Amino acid sequence: MIHFNNDYNRTAHPAIMQALAEGAAESHVGYGLDGWCEKGAALIREAIGRPEAEVHYLLGGTQANYTVISALLRPFQSVICADSGHINVHETGAVEHCGFKIQGLPMTDGKITAEQIAAEAELYRSSEIKEHITQPRLVYLSLPTEFGTIYTKAELTAIRRVCDEYGLLLYVDGARLAYGIAAADCDMTLPELASLVDVFYIGGTKCGAMFGEAVVFCRAELAENFRSYIKQNGGMLAKGWLLGLQFATLFTDELYLNIGRRAVEQAMQIREAFAAKGIMPYIESSTNQQFVVLDEAQMAQLGEKYIYEYEKNLGGGRHCVRFCTSWSTQPEEVAELLADIAAL
Amino acid sequence: MIHFNNDYNRTAHPAIMQALAEGAAESHVGYGLDGWCEKGAALIREAIGRPEAEVHYLLGGTQANYTVISALLRPFQSVICADSGHINVHETGAVEHCGFKIQGLPMTDGKITAEQIAAEAELYRSSEIKEHITQPRLVYLSLPTEFGTIYTKAELTAIRRVCDEYGLLLYVDGARLAYGIAAADCDMTLPELASLVDVFYIGGTKCGAMFGEAVVFCRAELAENFRSYIKQNGGMLAKGWLLGLQFATLFTDELYLNIGRRAVEQAMQIREAFAAKGIMPYIESSTNQQFVVLDEAQMAQLGEKYIYEYEKNLGGGRHCVRFCTSWSTQPEEVAELLADIAAL
Amino acid sequence: MIHFNNDYNRTAHPAIMQALAEGAAESHVGYGLDGWCEKGAALIREAIGRPEAEVHYLLGGTQANYTVISALLRPFQSVICADSGHINVHETGAVEHCGFKIQGLPMTDGKITAEQIAAEAELYRSSEIKEHITQPRLVYLSLPTEFGTIYTKAELTAIRRVCDEYGLLLYVDGARLAYGIAAADCDMTLPELASLVDVFYIGGTKCGAMFGEAVVFCRAELAENFRSYIKQNGGMLAKGWLLGLQFATLFTDELYLNIGRRAVEQAMQIREAFAAKGIMPYIESSTNQQFVVLDEAQMAQLGEKYIYEYEKNLGGGRHCVRFCTSWSTQPEEVAELLADIAAL
Amino acid sequence: MIHFNNDYNRTAHPAIMQALAEGAAESHVGYGLDGWCEKGAALIREAIGRPEAEVHYLLGGTQANYTVISALLRPFQSVICADSGHINVHETGAVEHCGFKIQGLPMTDGKITAEQIAAEAELYRSSEIKEHITQPRLVYLSLPTEFGTIYTKAELTAIRRVCDEYGLLLYVDGARLAYGIAAADCDMTLPELASLVDVFYIGGTKCGAMFGEAVVFCRAELAENFRSYIKQNGGMLAKGWLLGLQFATLFTDELYLNIGRRAVEQAMQIREAFAAKGIMPYIESSTNQQFVVLDEAQMAQLGEKYIYEYEKNLGGGRHCVRFCTSWSTQPEEVAELLADIAAL
Repeated sequence: MIHFNNDYNRTAHPAIMQALAEGAAESHVGYGLDGWCEKGAALIREAIGRPEAEVHYLLGGTQANYTVISALLRPFQSVICADSGHINVHETGAVEHCGFKIQGLPMTDGKITAEQIAAEAELYRSSEIKEHITQPRLVYLSLPTEFGTIYTKAELTAIRRVCDEYGLLLYVDGARLAYGIAAADCDMTLPELASLVDVFYIGGTKCGAMFGEAVVFCRAELAENFRSYIKQNGGMLAKGWLLGLQFATLFTDELYLNIGRRAVEQAMQIREAFAAKGIMPYIESSTNQQFVVLDEAQMAQLGEKYIYEYEKNLGGGRHCVRFCTSWSTQPEEVAELLADIAAL
Repeated sequence: MIHFNNDYNRTAHPAIMQALAEGAAESHVGYGLDGWCEKGAALIREAIGRPEAEVHYLLGGTQANYTVISALLRPFQSVICADSGHINVHETGAVEHCGFKIQGLPMTDGKITAEQIAAEAELYRSSEIKEHITQPRLVYLSLPTEFGTIYTKAELTAIRRVCDEYGLLLYVDGARLAYGIAAADCDMTLPELASLVDVFYIGGTKCGAMFGEAVVFCRAELAENFRSYIKQNGGMLAKGWLLGLQFATLFTDELYLNIGRRAVEQAMQIREAFAAKGIMPYIESSTNQQFVVLDEAQMAQLGEKYIYEYEKNLGGGRHCVRFCTSWSTQPEEVAELLADIAAL
Repeated sequence: MIHFNNDYNRTAHPAIMQALAEGAAESHVGYGLDGWCEKGAALIREAIGRPEAEVHYLLGGTQANYTVISALLRPFQSVICADSGHINVHETGAVEHCGFKIQGLPMTDGKITAEQIAAEAELYRSSEIKEHITQPRLVYLSLPTEFGTIYTKAELTAIRRVCDEYGLLLYVDGARLAYGIAAADCDMTLPELASLVDVFYIGGTKCGAMFGEAVVFCRAELAENFRSYIKQNGGMLAKGWLLGLQFATLFTDELYLNIGRRAVEQAMQIREAFAAKGIMPYIESSTNQQFVVLDEAQMAQLGEKYIYEYEKNLGGGRHCVRFCTSWSTQPEEVAELLADIAAL
Repeated sequence: MIHFNNDYNRTAHPAIMQALAEGAAESHVGYGLDGWCEKGAALIREAIGRPEAEVHYLLGGTQANYTVISALLRPFQSVICADSGHINVHETGAVEHCGFKIQGLPMTDGKITAEQIAAEAELYRSSEIKEHITQPRLVYLSLPTEFGTIYTKAELTAIRRVCDEYGLLLYVDGARLAYGIAAADCDMTLPELASLVDVFYIGGTKCGAMFGEAVVFCRAELAENFRSYIKQNGGMLAKGWLLGLQFATLFTDELYLNIGRRAVEQAMQIREAFAAKGIMPYIESSTNQQFVVLDEAQMAQLGEKYIYEYEKNLGGGRHCVRFCTSWSTQPEEVAELLADIAAL
């Protein structure tokens, strides 16, 4: 069977495997205070064009999200996000478990707008009973979103302006950032993205690493005591160098960007193959996740050779399923799928 | 100025004041272990027809809500309620602060339906990734709702059935229960209500008491260790008898029910007076809170003599405001208001 | 039976009862935004000589303690206190429930020293693995302590100096502050106390009020958003004026100080009566709580007429018990007890 | 420089590296639902002789500890442990951050006794104000302890008896379990240990794995919903098979036990070498951590070639330092150290 179900079904990019094997030959300082962690951070700072940024590593996306939010918010403050936001629907209430309310706004294609955020923030600002409601303090966006869509530079700039106007922090969940930056409709570079947000994380787990996410504080003062939050929240790896050297590898010779480019290219071929057969996307995605609407015969036929992810029953015999590419998707696997789609 | 803005602008019903004064003559056992607390509980058990119920007193509604929820839920579980539910919008995120996600469903007239609850619970039951989402465990309803509306016996029975089907606890916030039970469209008695829910609280603060709410566990086993939760959550009054004797007073000679009846009668007169002038309710309420739509001239004219609560700007020069009656509303105050409405 | 078991077995001082009764004649603004709350705060500011202080009311001591600590600490910070501190032993883990570690230091007569605090703070300052341990951020003291003892001005000044040196906040739990200030060995006035601490609370419940504690932020900036914390933690009374007018009454004509003086005078007579019989204190207390060591015959004899609080079995037929005076202790009750002690 | 400072300065045992490399060739099911996770669990169940045990993997020790405690305790319950317990001193208050009080008892050589635990539990059982204090619910032990010492079977059996008597759960932190089981004075096998405790974790990070700990619920019913707790607490690895195959490797051909045996043997040689020079242990340890007392000249001399961990200044020019062996310690490194100790 060929896996197109997700972007985390293989261990790690060969370059990462090799780096880990090489790193195994030496002894290292523990808890992320080693040279590899510093090197990874330096390469990230360079790639995003922000020499003053502070970089910390965490083990997974859920952990990155709730740890960052715990460090940035006070108990009476809340998070604004799309109602489809990962923290709102797929993290077992981890943010609430840390004590914070999430205010989910109705999404369109996985996204929310500057106007929606402003309206929500204005409710608090103009309230005469502020102590009875939570204060919005942080906007959580995903880039790409849970549906594979992209915020444009104009959209993100407008959101940044609202954040400045209302004293909100802007945080971007970049679990699949490599694939987002590579999208044709992403008109931002990494440095441009970094200049618009306060904090974001660069996803490793789904973008070539064995595991790990790099949290980037574009404003270093926001990272104060963050190592205490990491430890308290179970994210401090004794062998921290494992994270540092993976990110150092990903940010050497543009590996991270290249991984994104290749997978997105493959995804676009798949999108076109489906379109050529009149099979329409559930949501138009320009990144590595393709959500398409299949009938049951098509599902069965493709299901003989491919593992895809079932999303939901749309009624009338039609179903939404996901095909994902990733750093591990092989050209011959794509070629085979393209042929099989054409033969549907 | 005459106050119709809310139902908590006066200290306490004269019978309560007298009982507190009389109780001041003696020494009492502390922390709610005195005879008054037991007497209040016994009278409540009798009034609701459930000899096995367990009764505990708390100091206010927010505290009652989050303490009950903290005692009944485990960290991965969540609460279903109307998006307009008090816990969701006016308690500064207290439930989330205790670690629990609230799943707000779109309300109609302040209410949610058995079907909505079933659909939400079914999402979890049929999920194949249960560990990534929270498990709905408790349904929170308000009776009357935040808009003064009432769940009928049929509606509540249907919700009970869904709760049984999906293993959900049913909890009713009765901050204004006296006014709810007294409503013409409330086709339930207290014993009938108690037979349909797992836990509810009988509001004191807004229904004649100086302060305090009585939490009733219709299934006593749910109250296990509840005194520990009360203490940990700041609700254990050293002079607990203050609560016991207030509720003993409210549940002697049907005072609680009578308070509700009188205030609702007054509210209905006000509703009719507005209707007679063609002034329509924002939402049809059969209880002590009347939400009406006024123009600015009407607001100014009534504002000369009455304090009402401003709710929101409906646009086009129209505004929603609230007129509230309560145990403290005097007949002559109502008469004056009726005349002034007629003269608008 | 005559109650000497605690200082919260009667409802409220007659002046408080009268003020509450008078306040019942009018309508008030809700949630502590009324004139009584402001008047009480103004009188407290005057009594402590700090016009810039911010005053908020809470409903009980446990609630005051955990709400203040929640507002002042970040999640990785901790509280230093005596191992016998009320928050450490009698509040059902409320501070930990809010997420904060308590570092209990061995007490002597209920107190800890500046040296102990400095040593604990130094452990963090000199640690090379700060992110693995919590950062001490607040010192909690009780005045008087749980054993009725007093910090002298010199002791408190030394602790203040350590707090300044290590960036610690100094918070005093004044559940029985009236009795502490009145103690012969308390060489501080309220203004002197207020000049040495960051935050303290003036106990009402045990010092004449029906219920309620006044939290005083001597540095107003520490009170930022405190009303949000009050609401979130269940402490915002709808009828907030009940608290304001109680404290306004206590701080009119030195009622609060007089309550303390009288009860301490009575306690000293009891102490002397016991001493005259060779009955020794368990701990020397200069305030309204007297812990004495009785044998079983003495316990039985006094137990015929008096209710005292049993503390613990000291072995050898000797037991520690507590006799408490308070605002409600009558002169004739004391006279009777003195005679009965003399007759042992 | 040769590293004897800790047992986590190298990446992973060669067998683990090879297994990870081999596993990289295939696609896997995510989130720990793959065959490797099941195989690892089966091998562990076999090794501990408990076919009914439930095994879950977490990423590190702090995370394992607070996630297990969060799942097993209710908010008013607390944990009993040695005051030197890792959760009490080196996890940044993570357990309190999850809401639970830790009751640290004075340790002797890193251990607490059944008598101490019974006395603490008895305080609650015999308390008449249970709602004011936390209820001890879980005993946390480390095996080996933070000082490298061992609970004997008799000691653990006595603690088990106390736990049964008082309704306490018994949890063992086995971060270094391989080295504990291998100790000469450890008179328990893994199955014997498993028969005495409710939950324990088998440390991977310090015992040969790249990262990861296996939590074993000896009573499967305690593991109910544990996957929800794992996800909510940031411990659910997308590529869960990485953990499964590491533990499958460690529990194939007794690798885990052999790793322990070799490192302990090396540590004993080092202990004897120090003793032969009259250099005494700070605490007698029979496991891979050796705490010895050096003077400054000795420290300087050994510091030229070896990295050890500095513990604390004992005064009088004497210092406690730690030499650690581990799976990665090479025979020639030990030989060199032995010679250099002999030459001191």
